[in-house]
Amino acid sequence: MSNMKLQYTRLLICTLILMTLVLENTIAQDKTTYMRIAKITVDSVLLSEYIVALKTQMQAALKYEAGVLAYSAVQDKNNPNHITILETYASTAAYQLHIQTDHFKKYKTTVADMVKHLELTDVIPLAIQTKQK
Amino acid sequence: MSNMKLQYTRLLICTLILMTLVLENTIAQDKTTYMRIAKITVDSVLLSEYIVALKTQMQAALKYEAGVLAYSAVQDKNNPNHITILETYASTAAYQLHIQTDHFKKYKTTVADMVKHLELTDVIPLAIQTKQK
Repeated sequence: MSNMKLQYTRLLICTLILMTLVLENTIAQDKTTYMRIAKITVDSVLLSEYIVALKTQMQAALKYEAGVLAYSAVQDKNNPNHITILETYASTAAYQLHIQTDHFKKYKTTVADMVKHLELTDVIPLAIQTKQK
Repeated sequence: MSNMKLQYTRLLICTLILMTLVLENTIAQDKTTYMRIAKITVDSVLLSEYIVALKTQMQAALKYEAGVLAYSAVQDKNNPNHITILETYASTAAYQLHIQTDHFKKYKTTVADMVKHLELTDVIPLAIQTKQK
């Protein structure tokens, strides 16, 4: 193989590797959002205190953490102490950072005696859509 | 009572009635949003067809119905045929209109044999928050 052909082949291989890396990174970025549903049963007597602690935590997380993207917290109409939270983080790494923050640790300590049951389910988004204004 | 005092009293009463009406209307508007969680177990073999039907319904509802405000549809990571949808309508009346639409009726007919289990829970929003950009 001539020297020029060899250099051309090397360049082609390098380009292909680079394109593969870029493509993989693009796919990875699309898939990085980490979503979870938390189902929480709260001691009815302590419900209003729990809600204050929850809102305080969520507001701090959204304000101070780049990787905390959204919270949708609702309570069952017929069982108000049954709370469901759909949580969206930028990545699992962002979630790992989140649980190390002071506001999250304070929330966990505050609500330790208020939460009777906690069920966590990792979920994948199918469609997160709001009406276009 | 002098004529001026009488007029003043009438004006005061009218203002109070008006303020009460405005306040009541504001409170009513805050309370009208109707939210619900739908938990759906889909026949695994028909999952991809179900997801197409669901997305088609959601997109049509958000596009054509003023009272359909938002959908968050997710699937369990470890049980992808377990789907959870957080639905937001402008009011219960808006929801009643929604279930009479052609796109909703078509969805219900299409998925009748795909859905193995359906659990509906009315919920009240505690906090629906997205990071401010």
